[in-house]
Amino acid sequence: MKKRVSVLGSTGSIGKSALEVIGAYPGRFEVVGLAAGANLELLEEQCRRFKPRTASLKDEVLAEKLRKRLSGIPIQINCAEEGLTSVATAPDLDLLVSAVVGAAGLRPTLAAIREGTDIALANKEIVVMAGEILVAEAAAAGVKILPVDSEHSAIFQCLQGVNPADVKRLILTASGGPLAKLSLTELQQVTKKQALSHPTWQMGKKISVDSATLMNKGLEVLEAHWFFGQPIDKIDVLIHPQSIIHSMVEMRDGSVMAQLGIPDMRLPILYALSYPERWDGVLPPLDLTRVGSLTFSQPDLERFPCLGYAYEAAKAGGTMPAVLNAANEVAVGAFLKDEIALTDIPYLARCAMEQHQPKPLLTVDDAYEADQWARSIAQELLVTPH
Amino acid sequence: MKKRVSVLGSTGSIGKSALEVIGAYPGRFEVVGLAAGANLELLEEQCRRFKPRTASLKDEVLAEKLRKRLSGIPIQINCAEEGLTSVATAPDLDLLVSAVVGAAGLRPTLAAIREGTDIALANKEIVVMAGEILVAEAAAAGVKILPVDSEHSAIFQCLQGVNPADVKRLILTASGGPLAKLSLTELQQVTKKQALSHPTWQMGKKISVDSATLMNKGLEVLEAHWFFGQPIDKIDVLIHPQSIIHSMVEMRDGSVMAQLGIPDMRLPILYALSYPERWDGVLPPLDLTRVGSLTFSQPDLERFPCLGYAYEAAKAGGTMPAVLNAANEVAVGAFLKDEIALTDIPYLARCAMEQHQPKPLLTVDDAYEADQWARSIAQELLVTPH
Repeated sequence: MKKRVSVLGSTGSIGKSALEVIGAYPGRFEVVGLAAGANLELLEEQCRRFKPRTASLKDEVLAEKLRKRLSGIPIQINCAEEGLTSVATAPDLDLLVSAVVGAAGLRPTLAAIREGTDIALANKEIVVMAGEILVAEAAAAGVKILPVDSEHSAIFQCLQGVNPADVKRLILTASGGPLAKLSLTELQQVTKKQALSHPTWQMGKKISVDSATLMNKGLEVLEAHWFFGQPIDKIDVLIHPQSIIHSMVEMRDGSVMAQLGIPDMRLPILYALSYPERWDGVLPPLDLTRVGSLTFSQPDLERFPCLGYAYEAAKAGGTMPAVLNAANEVAVGAFLKDEIALTDIPYLARCAMEQHQPKPLLTVDDAYEADQWARSIAQELLVTPH
Repeated sequence: MKKRVSVLGSTGSIGKSALEVIGAYPGRFEVVGLAAGANLELLEEQCRRFKPRTASLKDEVLAEKLRKRLSGIPIQINCAEEGLTSVATAPDLDLLVSAVVGAAGLRPTLAAIREGTDIALANKEIVVMAGEILVAEAAAAGVKILPVDSEHSAIFQCLQGVNPADVKRLILTASGGPLAKLSLTELQQVTKKQALSHPTWQMGKKISVDSATLMNKGLEVLEAHWFFGQPIDKIDVLIHPQSIIHSMVEMRDGSVMAQLGIPDMRLPILYALSYPERWDGVLPPLDLTRVGSLTFSQPDLERFPCLGYAYEAAKAGGTMPAVLNAANEVAVGAFLKDEIALTDIPYLARCAMEQHQPKPLLTVDDAYEADQWARSIAQELLVTPH
C-alpha cells in the first residue's frame, strides 16, 4: 500500500530532499500534492516527475503560468494560503511534509491535522509560534507529529520504547555554526557569505543564518519543549562541531541514549517518511573511524545571545515565542539584504521581546497577531538608527 | 514489592558492585542468597549486612567456618556447585545476579532459569561456552536474560522499542585496554602489573587481562551473538579508548543508536536490577564537556589476535567457543602466576582450537566436556616448551 504524501515547500531545501527520498523508494509513495513559493521552474519539473493531483504557488500570476505550462496534464493548481491548504488537505492523504519556511505554513498544517493527517514537521517556526495549539490539536485528532529536524528526529528515535517519566534531560547538539570561534567584535563584521557557509549541514538560507546566530538552536529548544512535552529547564544545548551525534536523551538513572549518523537531512527525512518502519538506507553508512574525534563544549550565550532569548521566551510563554520568531525572521531577512549586521539580529529580537506583553495562546489568531505585531515592531526598529 | 535477589559471585568485582547498588536502594530489594568462592571475611560481612536466607562458599571447610562465625543467625550455608545451585534456586527468587567468573556458574544459572527466574548475567564465560543452550532454555522457561556487561547493556538499551529486523549491525566498543599502543615485541615483555592497569574500568583480574589481549571483546562478540540473536558477521568491534559510548546499534536506514555513560559498572548493573524500570541514579552524571574528545579506530588483529579467534570460534560453532574460552582461562591463570608471557595467551588458545574437532552443543555436558578437554590441552601446552 503506497503512502500518500503532500509536500508544503517542495522547492525548498527540505522539500527537495524529501522528494529525493521519495524518488529513491519507487512504489512506496504516491505524491498527492506539491506546494511551492515562487520557484515555477522547479515546481513544474517536480509536477512532471511526481504527477501530483494538486499543486500551489505563491500567487495567481505564478499559478496561471504553471497551468499553461502543464496544460493537458490533469492537475488542479491553486495559489496563496488557500492553495497551500488545498495541498495540505487533499483527500486520502496519509502524511503531510510541512516544510514551508516561516509562519505561512501554520494554518495549512493545522488544517491537515484537523483532517486526521499525520505530519512530518520541518517548519520549526510554526512550532515555535503555536506549538501549544499544534500539539493539542494533534492529540485531539489522534494525529502523529513526526519531527524532521535532525535533532528532534534523534530525540524521537531515542525515546522509542522509553517511559517519558524516565527522561531526565534532553540534550540538543549544535554544530556551533560557521562563526563559532569568532569574537563579539568579529561577529559584527560578518558577511552574508561567512554566515551562510555552514561547516557540516547543507541547508536553506534562513536556517543557515539562524545556525550562525544559534537562534536556530533556540527555536529547536522551543520545538523540543512542545514535541516532547518536557519543561524548558530539562532541555539543554551542547556544542558538538562534528554534527555526528544528532542529539541525546539523559535518563533518570544516568544513562544517555544518543542517535548518530552522517550529517545529511535525508536521514531524518527518511525516518519521518518511513515511520514507524525503517527502510534500507541509500546513503553511505556512518564510519566513526573516519570522522576523527567527537568534541563537546558549552554554548557561549554572550557571543550568541539568541539562544538565551529563546529560553526567556519559553519561560514567558504564551505569545512571546511567536514574537521572538517573527522579529528574528524580519531581522534575518534584513541581514540577507545587507541592511543590518549579524549582531543586529539578536538586538532586534531582544527589543521586540522587551516591548511585548505576552498573552495566552488560545487560538491561531493570537499567534498570528503576535507575529504581525512583532514584524511591524522589527520593521520600525530597522529604520530607527541605533 | 521488594525484588528478591540472589548473587552468585558476591565477593567478586561485579558481585560487590551489585550489592553496592542494592544497598543504595533501601526498600527495593530483599537479598535471598549470596555465593562466594574463598573470601570468607567479605562474605561474612555481606551476610551480616544483607541478611540472606542462604549462602555458599567454595568448599566444606570454608562453609563450616562461616557457619561458626554466623552461629545464632538463621542462615543456611552450603558449599561447592551444590551450594551455588541452592543460592541460585532459593524459593521465590525474582532475579539471579550470575556473576561468578568462569565455567562454574553454568549449571547453577541454568538451574535458576529452569525455575523461571530472570537472570542478570555478568558471567560471560558461560554464555560463550553454552549460549545456545542458555538462550533456548530461557525462551522455553519464559525467562529474561538481562546483560550486565556495559557493552551488552548498552545494546540492550538501544534495542528497546526496536524491531529486530531493522538492525543492520551491532557495534561493540572496546577501550583497547592498557596495552593498545604497544608493538608486538613490547607485548611479549608485558608485566602482570601493566596488563592489570586498565585505563578506564575498575574490574577483576581475569577480565582485566582479557581486556589487555582483546579476548574480552572476543568473548563479548560471542555473547552478543547469543544475547541478541544476531549472526556473527553483523557484530563489529570499534576501538574507543574513552569508554564513554558503551556500544551502538546501526539500523538498516543508516541511523546509529548509542548508549553513553560514565565508565562505572554500577550503571549497567542498576539497569539490569531495575529493568524494566529505571530508577534515579546515584552516580555523577556524564558531562561530555569534561571528557575531552571521543575517538574511534579499527582493532588491530595482528597485535591482538584473540579477537579474531573469537570470530573463528563463532563461525566454527558448536563446542569451539567453549574450547577457546577454557584454553584462555588456563592461559590467563598461568600469566597471572607469571608462568607465561602475555603473547602466549593467544598462542595457547589458538593451539587448543586447532586441535579441536567441534561437535554440536546439545547439552550442557557437551559444553563441559569441551571445556575440560581444552583445559587439559592447555595445561599440556603450558609444560611443553615452544
